Amino acid sequence: MRNIKMTIEYDGTRYQGWQRLGNTDKTIQGKIENIIKQLTGETIEIIGSGRTDAGTHARNQVANFKTEYTGSLAEMLSFFHKYLPQDIVVKHLEEVPDRFHARYNAKGKTYSYYLWNDPIPSAFKRHYSYHYPETLNLDAMQQAAELLCGTHDFAGFSALKKSKKSTVRTIEAITITREGHELHFTFKGNGFLHKMVRILVGTLVEIGSGQMKIKQIETIFEQKIRSEAGETMPAQGLFLDYVEYE
Amino acid sequence: MRNIKMTIEYDGTRYQGWQRLGNTDKTIQGKIENIIKQLTGETIEIIGSGRTDAGTHARNQVANFKTEYTGSLAEMLSFFHKYLPQDIVVKHLEEVPDRFHARYNAKGKTYSYYLWNDPIPSAFKRHYSYHYPETLNLDAMQQAAELLCGTHDFAGFSALKKSKKSTVRTIEAITITREGHELHFTFKGNGFLHKMVRILVGTLVEIGSGQMKIKQIETIFEQKIRSEAGETMPAQGLFLDYVEYE
Repeated sequence: MRNIKMTIEYDGTRYQGWQRLGNTDKTIQGKIENIIKQLTGETIEIIGSGRTDAGTHARNQVANFKTEYTGSLAEMLSFFHKYLPQDIVVKHLEEVPDRFHARYNAKGKTYSYYLWNDPIPSAFKRHYSYHYPETLNLDAMQQAAELLCGTHDFAGFSALKKSKKSTVRTIEAITITREGHELHFTFKGNGFLHKMVRILVGTLVEIGSGQMKIKQIETIFEQKIRSEAGETMPAQGLFLDYVEYE
Repeated sequence: MRNIKMTIEYDGTRYQGWQRLGNTDKTIQGKIENIIKQLTGETIEIIGSGRTDAGTHARNQVANFKTEYTGSLAEMLSFFHKYLPQDIVVKHLEEVPDRFHARYNAKGKTYSYYLWNDPIPSAFKRHYSYHYPETLNLDAMQQAAELLCGTHDFAGFSALKKSKKSTVRTIEAITITREGHELHFTFKGNGFLHKMVRILVGTLVEIGSGQMKIKQIETIFEQKIRSEAGETMPAQGLFLDYVEYE
């Protein structure tokens, strides 16, 4: 059996997210598995580095799958380009050792979130950002972002129900930059809980708008209560940029 | 009667172009006229600076219309934001002298064209560029672009049937820059014939790929035969950027 690592870009607008559901036609994983079945005849499961929600995008999602297919990776890649819909692009294929597992071996991830921060909405960014028309205090957001960095229990910044799994994560870096009318957030860390990036952005936006004080960050870390943090920002502003492996 | 000048951004992907046809729901002009009718009760015709083809986009299309509406421009603008589809955004409204005519008074236009110039297609640029995977000689294209600038009879670079109207136009500047995997062309001139920008890009691409020699530009100017020029590039790479007025 060969173990193939794939790097995938997708526009999540039309999909119910990464993870295959009953109707495989509406998920990224399902679409890719169907094409692999067409090529190889095998019913295989591809393992993603993690899920992305409905409407969320990826620039370099990573997945792996095991196959008996004997053709070249170039042939496989051109089959993907030919038969996948244009909003899912397999960018790279690589043969990796049998032990490689796209989820278990992921050591870190980087996400981007975009706000269209202008009174006038954008026709072109409507699926790739969240329209936030009011002015935001970038300094206050950057101070709050510094408090979020480091190793903390992010339970209060997660949509997870109580579970026995650890909710401690390390955020290595957060950047917030203005690019024209867009505010571009990046989050780099060793892992993120369900909806954590969108809740972090929602919290930073409430701080930037003056609705929340910076010191509230500490309260959320201490109390671990979801309702103390900001709103979950809409999925369409979120991009999975990179997944790191050793 | 007030004369209102509008600046409009639109993603042309879902539309049959600017100009209203029988089915007004599938054109930009038709969509905007319907909203004006909802607001004012008037059946009016808006005058665009020019048409854009199906699939072509605009960052700052300009149009004007005459109305008896007495409300403020701010109210009108927020009505547009509320009721137009998200892929058509009225960015600015301005009251102008009665004699202002968006088409007759246009003194110049700037267009952009984007090629996604990488073997791997882009999920995000699929509606906003043309995927051209092969390498292009940028120097040769820039030399040819210089020959295209100035005042010439562009009949050979147009989809127009023979007509008595002048096909002489002046191109002030052409730029070709590489931005990551994208080649970005801009064309600034006093006016462009039907499909002229897309044919100019098609011609430059044939020169960049080595299929056509630079001196062919002179032949097309002399012979004015459409088939001597390059192919018409697909509409989705084209953006109307600016329309200039005195």
